[in-house]
Amino acid sequence: MRNPVLIELTRGVLVESLHAGAVAVVRADGEIVAAVGDVAAPTFPRSAIKPLQAIPFVETGAADRFGFGPREIALASASHSGTQAHTSLARSMLARAGLSPDALACGVHEPLDPVTARAMIRSGAAPTPLHHNCSGKHAGMLATAVHKGEPSEGYWRPDHPVQARIARVLEELSGCRLSPDVCGTDGCSVPNWAMPLSGLAQAFARLAMHEGMSAARAVACRRIAEACAAHPDLVAGPGRLDTLMMARLPGAVFMKAGAEGVYCGALPERGLGFALKIDDGAKRAAEAVVVQLLGRFHPEVADLGPAATLTNWRGVEVGQTRPSAALEALLERLRL
Amino acid sequence: MRNPVLIELTRGVLVESLHAGAVAVVRADGEIVAAVGDVAAPTFPRSAIKPLQAIPFVETGAADRFGFGPREIALASASHSGTQAHTSLARSMLARAGLSPDALACGVHEPLDPVTARAMIRSGAAPTPLHHNCSGKHAGMLATAVHKGEPSEGYWRPDHPVQARIARVLEELSGCRLSPDVCGTDGCSVPNWAMPLSGLAQAFARLAMHEGMSAARAVACRRIAEACAAHPDLVAGPGRLDTLMMARLPGAVFMKAGAEGVYCGALPERGLGFALKIDDGAKRAAEAVVVQLLGRFHPEVADLGPAATLTNWRGVEVGQTRPSAALEALLERLRL
Repeated sequence: MRNPVLIELTRGVLVESLHAGAVAVVRADGEIVAAVGDVAAPTFPRSAIKPLQAIPFVETGAADRFGFGPREIALASASHSGTQAHTSLARSMLARAGLSPDALACGVHEPLDPVTARAMIRSGAAPTPLHHNCSGKHAGMLATAVHKGEPSEGYWRPDHPVQARIARVLEELSGCRLSPDVCGTDGCSVPNWAMPLSGLAQAFARLAMHEGMSAARAVACRRIAEACAAHPDLVAGPGRLDTLMMARLPGAVFMKAGAEGVYCGALPERGLGFALKIDDGAKRAAEAVVVQLLGRFHPEVADLGPAATLTNWRGVEVGQTRPSAALEALLERLRL
Repeated sequence: MRNPVLIELTRGVLVESLHAGAVAVVRADGEIVAAVGDVAAPTFPRSAIKPLQAIPFVETGAADRFGFGPREIALASASHSGTQAHTSLARSMLARAGLSPDALACGVHEPLDPVTARAMIRSGAAPTPLHHNCSGKHAGMLATAVHKGEPSEGYWRPDHPVQARIARVLEELSGCRLSPDVCGTDGCSVPNWAMPLSGLAQAFARLAMHEGMSAARAVACRRIAEACAAHPDLVAGPGRLDTLMMARLPGAVFMKAGAEGVYCGALPERGLGFALKIDDGAKRAAEAVVVQLLGRFHPEVADLGPAATLTNWRGVEVGQTRPSAALEALLERLRL
């Protein structure tokens, strides 16, 4: 199915480019409050699912075993920017679990933070796996393996107990069956299961409300949500939307971006979870949609995300980024 | 109208993201040989139109007046990478027209070439308007204004004779009427007119075939096509698709990328022009489509452009970039 257009970019009086996608807004019990597009199609959540992947890290007692608090739990849920604060915390997590950065299987990329990346270019420093935006998540997975007495080697394989445990949590929170045919390999090499946006939104509602689960899991979910609310700077980084939004609305919004135009999150005060995917994978559109969605409940955040007015290299106004009629209709249904 | 999907990106066995768009393949006389999607809708060509914008620069005698040869003509048609070779040539063009880089109204961005950008970060050098990918085009526009005795000030405004002259050339080559309501402002502040892909493809066929025009314009078109074929390194830069493709197929392919997922070009030996636009503006999809299109006639270039096999940060294969059934059908119609 082709999804409806959600975001239009204009130049002069014409639409130059457009982005289609789907959005689900769901309660913890699975009731779909509002949706646009195909929210039943299997969709790779990519990094948007990191807070759910962190649940076993807390629930098994691994976080407590190594004395990890809210900062480490936030980093385990993060796509961090690779600043000094991020990499030193990831390194210390590994050290407390008795491991070195060599244990990380995430790969290497330059820090997402441009200030850090430029400083490293100037100094000639090469990026390491610690700079990878997923290093905190991987440190949490490794710590869980060590805590459970499982091999740290191969912790990223779909059949490793660490990943099997995460898959069970995803199934239980989303109500979805994860079969091998919906399993892909993520950018950091761990399995990533395609799930319906409706199930992802429900899972995030349950995470944020910590409802309908065992007492131990409810505590884990509460600790993850509170850690991200307390340390939004560790969940993403300077200038990034997740950090800015959660810093602006502490505790009222929980959100996590994923590659290829995905956002998942929750509005705990409203009892709502949400999940969205842009068909073409564009980050600019995913950010524009999530700001529209959250701005419906919190108009004071409408200035975050992509600028509504597009300017060129000389600062001249050339066009607009605007919601489509289909997205406006979804937002209208959310006027609660 | 929503255009058909042209490119699919898979992860595991599922399609993760997709890109819709339209493609026109047209002869110099306007006959549409093959098309997919809405090729009549007004579409901003952005930088893809630079070789057409360079026509008055050559046709008026401005290039000859200042002793410019194929290298300067290629740079005037370029979205260059801001290497030392590009910036020094743009500076010399301005100097020979009696101007300094201060005359450039294109704005400033870091060089597109990552090696140059990193070297500047290391040395602490700040980018200048000469590094803007459009500085060669702007130098050509300024030289034309000086040659014609027109003010260099405001050469970028839609009502300046330089831009009015370009608009007339676009109308004559494409067979389109350019009215103010299809005029947008480009990233470098000059006017950019939305035109049907069919008209853009025809204009590029005529440019490359230099047919159906005055003798003076035919000479100008031939010089532009030959300059780009002789100096593909000046039209884009190291590692970029336009440079790689025209270096691989000198004279057999003429092509130019534009922002927001546009490509225009021609296959002179086949008498064909082409123009394409990805609805969502994705460069990865525009490049994949143009490689598929040119690969139909020249299978030896199928390795250029986005990798068909997608790998992650550790080099693990995670998916494919592949043409859709609609794009395959278009290519099938081009089996000449």
